[in-house]
Amino acid sequence: MLYLVGLGLADETDITVRGLEVVKKAERVYLEAYTAILLVDKEKLEAFYGRPVIEADREKVETGSDEILADADKVDVAFLVVGDPFGYVPAHLIFLALCYIGIISNSTFSATTHTDLVLRARELGIESKVIPNASIMSGIGCTGLQLYNFGQTVSMVFFTENWKPSSYYDRVKENVQLGLHTLVLLDIKVKEPSLENMARGRLIYEPPRFMTVAQCAGQMLETEEERQEGVWGPDSLAVGAARVGAADQKLVAGTLKELAEVDMGRPLHSLVLIGKRAHDLEKDYIREFAVDQATFDASWQKGGYGTM
Amino acid sequence: MLYLVGLGLADETDITVRGLEVVKKAERVYLEAYTAILLVDKEKLEAFYGRPVIEADREKVETGSDEILADADKVDVAFLVVGDPFGYVPAHLIFLALCYIGIISNSTFSATTHTDLVLRARELGIESKVIPNASIMSGIGCTGLQLYNFGQTVSMVFFTENWKPSSYYDRVKENVQLGLHTLVLLDIKVKEPSLENMARGRLIYEPPRFMTVAQCAGQMLETEEERQEGVWGPDSLAVGAARVGAADQKLVAGTLKELAEVDMGRPLHSLVLIGKRAHDLEKDYIREFAVDQATFDASWQKGGYGTM
Repeated sequence: MLYLVGLGLADETDITVRGLEVVKKAERVYLEAYTAILLVDKEKLEAFYGRPVIEADREKVETGSDEILADADKVDVAFLVVGDPFGYVPAHLIFLALCYIGIISNSTFSATTHTDLVLRARELGIESKVIPNASIMSGIGCTGLQLYNFGQTVSMVFFTENWKPSSYYDRVKENVQLGLHTLVLLDIKVKEPSLENMARGRLIYEPPRFMTVAQCAGQMLETEEERQEGVWGPDSLAVGAARVGAADQKLVAGTLKELAEVDMGRPLHSLVLIGKRAHDLEKDYIREFAVDQATFDASWQKGGYGTM
Repeated sequence: MLYLVGLGLADETDITVRGLEVVKKAERVYLEAYTAILLVDKEKLEAFYGRPVIEADREKVETGSDEILADADKVDVAFLVVGDPFGYVPAHLIFLALCYIGIISNSTFSATTHTDLVLRARELGIESKVIPNASIMSGIGCTGLQLYNFGQTVSMVFFTENWKPSSYYDRVKENVQLGLHTLVLLDIKVKEPSLENMARGRLIYEPPRFMTVAQCAGQMLETEEERQEGVWGPDSLAVGAARVGAADQKLVAGTLKELAEVDMGRPLHSLVLIGKRAHDLEKDYIREFAVDQATFDASWQKGGYGTM
């Protein structure tokens, strides 16, 4: 049996009791280590589980899935995933982009999803089970913003000098026109081959990087500057969320201009662009975290929030 | 400290290790017992936790929140919530509807959210912490449908002879026009006062009821019949999900007409109406659960799925 076990969002104790039982009993335990990270390292997990954990980087999952699945028709194999096993995988968009610019093929893209691992297990006649856990997609409810007021979730990748993809803008625009909130998941680069080196056929990894709320807000303002469709502006309200579910979770509400200057500490960060259908109860909740409550109230009123 | 502890989706072992520590140490433990249910009863939870659990029905949370919060500035109080504490609360829409028809006031509506419990704690100077867990909003990823292809989530209430609210239709329409999937959460009635008795000022509860995938599909077809805007039809594809995350989890894919006849067993059920932006990888995954793969393929092609 292949078990996909969700680890939740913050530390080693966020695994479920059922998930922990599976990890303790499994023949082999892999940790998916390239689409998201826990706030603790592998050694801490190993100490907590009382057993070794094999790190599965992108290469192992894409090209070595047969190793992961070996004998899984006879023994139990646990594949640990930060958050929920079927939660959103931000790496998708990065890979879509890489496909788009022709650096990797589309088949590589599909191989980045955990769905694909299950599909391959199915082909090999191996059963699989999922142990769900918290995902940022529901965890973001900690902002007080109601989940039924969210539209599509989007990803924000690190802009480079020559590459500032703005396809996310069109999706956010669809949400904004309906007055819905948008959860923006921020790029992480853990053991990512650098574009330049990939193009030269060399597999050299970039140092790990995690996008901050400030970087995201800054890039959003940059995109609006370029697209000029008024989907958002410097006074648009958003909430930055850092380390959701952890003891040092931090929420900051403010305008994009304010958030572009905010320091929210260590990763992981996410951002929610607030939709105009927002309810007064949501406002009451988030204004507590405002960078500046006067600016917040003024932007709320001027922006026509709560009026759709 | 007020702890809102997510219990996850299926049974007593779905609590996180961190959540279990909180439950074991807290002075008092309440179980929110009216917006969702676990697949096990309170006695099983009490045996697992090794301590008594106080059931908090709607009345206690709305009118007795001071009892729940008593001394929480000095001692730890745990408030257990099925799924994720800030996950979607299907009762919202029921209450919105009750507000709409004037049976209860809007203040009662706002009191149904867990957000409100936190807001009241905040007013009393009591700190609160959330222990996240799996929610149906990410758990629904088990269908293989990608979470970033979902639009707004909606709720479906039990229709009665004279009351068939169709406001959900407008929200689903927004998703359908964008080609997005829609998660439909199905009504549950646990210790709900009956409308008729409420109107007469009597507090008499209806027996517990849980909407099935078949009932939901049937009601959707009824609404389309009435609205005639062609947002969906008998051949529209959907996925029914029962007991997500449990050992006997069951998925069935098919047309709404097929799903209106399907028996998916005990609660809880949810339904996803598939959007036309669907990816081939999503198709590959869900057609395994098709009532009839030939019908599924034909409806996929005829409906233009995967073409947006």
